[in-house]
Amino acid sequence: MKDLKENAKPSKSEQTRSLILETALRLFQERGYDKTTMRAIAQEAGVSVGNAYYYFASKEHLVQGFYDRIGKQHQAAVEEALGDERDLAARIRAVLLAWLDIAEPYQRFAAQFFKNAADPDSPLSPFSPESAGPREAAIEVHRTVLAGADTKIDPELAELLPQLLWLQQMGVVLFWVYDRSEGCANSRRLVTRLAPVTARAISLSRFRLLRPLVRETHDLLGDFMPTAASMAANGRTGKENS
Amino acid sequence: MKDLKENAKPSKSEQTRSLILETALRLFQERGYDKTTMRAIAQEAGVSVGNAYYYFASKEHLVQGFYDRIGKQHQAAVEEALGDERDLAARIRAVLLAWLDIAEPYQRFAAQFFKNAADPDSPLSPFSPESAGPREAAIEVHRTVLAGADTKIDPELAELLPQLLWLQQMGVVLFWVYDRSEGCANSRRLVTRLAPVTARAISLSRFRLLRPLVRETHDLLGDFMPTAASMAANGRTGKENS
Repeated sequence: MKDLKENAKPSKSEQTRSLILETALRLFQERGYDKTTMRAIAQEAGVSVGNAYYYFASKEHLVQGFYDRIGKQHQAAVEEALGDERDLAARIRAVLLAWLDIAEPYQRFAAQFFKNAADPDSPLSPFSPESAGPREAAIEVHRTVLAGADTKIDPELAELLPQLLWLQQMGVVLFWVYDRSEGCANSRRLVTRLAPVTARAISLSRFRLLRPLVRETHDLLGDFMPTAASMAANGRTGKENS
Repeated sequence: MKDLKENAKPSKSEQTRSLILETALRLFQERGYDKTTMRAIAQEAGVSVGNAYYYFASKEHLVQGFYDRIGKQHQAAVEEALGDERDLAARIRAVLLAWLDIAEPYQRFAAQFFKNAADPDSPLSPFSPESAGPREAAIEVHRTVLAGADTKIDPELAELLPQLLWLQQMGVVLFWVYDRSEGCANSRRLVTRLAPVTARAISLSRFRLLRPLVRETHDLLGDFMPTAASMAANGRTGKENS
């Protein structure tokens, strides 16, 4: 990982951008996302407020920057984690476990801003137009997972399956946000149990019979996952007593 | 519904029991589950505290009483809702929509005590040994759904499928607890979209090929749904800032 980050010497501008992002993530974790202002981030990073805004137009842009970073770290880790493994279940497991490894230091921060990110209309939602870049990159990871496996993939479902695997990853992320077990053991156990079931479902999806089911499941998850995530994050915030 | 409740004239004892339960549900809704004491329930119902405890040994028993009641109302409504419908998707939809109809007046209360009920170790959890009665009754409803449909069911999966449909119902309930849309429109939309997909999956499960997948999915849901519900209910309650 270190080598990957450092193989191209970052420019002054990249260094400043990175410093602001690091500082913001630290403050989000320490003070909470809602309570952290751009002014405070700039002050802590030792740059002018104008300079901070030059790199990140808003707090939302900082979260997008976080998505980009975690996505790139994941992409880099995935290459190594997959190696020349050909078994689909093992590949799915490796990719999700790699994500959990990378995300672990940010878990508290994730819980903090999840309430904002889970609103399907928020630019921070992983389903939003603003998140298209990191989302496409993440779906691409799952395309790699499938392409390198020795499981035959139905060409008609080739477009759908990487998206379905990404939706599954979003489900794992939702579970992980709430996971308070030591070292996120529950999330790891979920991934380990889920991977072979998913791999089996995918290997069966080559049968023509199952194609409509795969399509419908894909559409259903795509429609309802943003709503479900939003409800889980915001549903009980004091509205019961209103 | 009224007729069903009143066709056998309730005894004095049943009337008292029912009065205590009604009062408790009303107070839970008005004051919150945690803040309502047995003493307050007895007072409001106009019975002695000792008498209240005679019928319900604890607040938890009141919630079990609520499960029983809502379950019996559902069973009664399901008969009518299913009629002589033979289409599996229509039957699944009817049963889940009937549940949403019956549960609607209690939604605020449900959100109140969900935090307690979602802990897999709580006697209030739908997965707990204490809830075995209402749970079995609810699974029985889904057995009826399958038995009356014109979809051929794999005999080897006959035990598993009603449980899977019940797990699906628990998923819908989890979604519904957080549903703030007018008239729970989102939950209804979910049920309407979900039913045909589930029916298709069940109709495909007769193929020998799919049996292991059905079994694994069943085990996975049974293992992780209690944990997931608990996390969704309790995960973010102030622990982020600790």
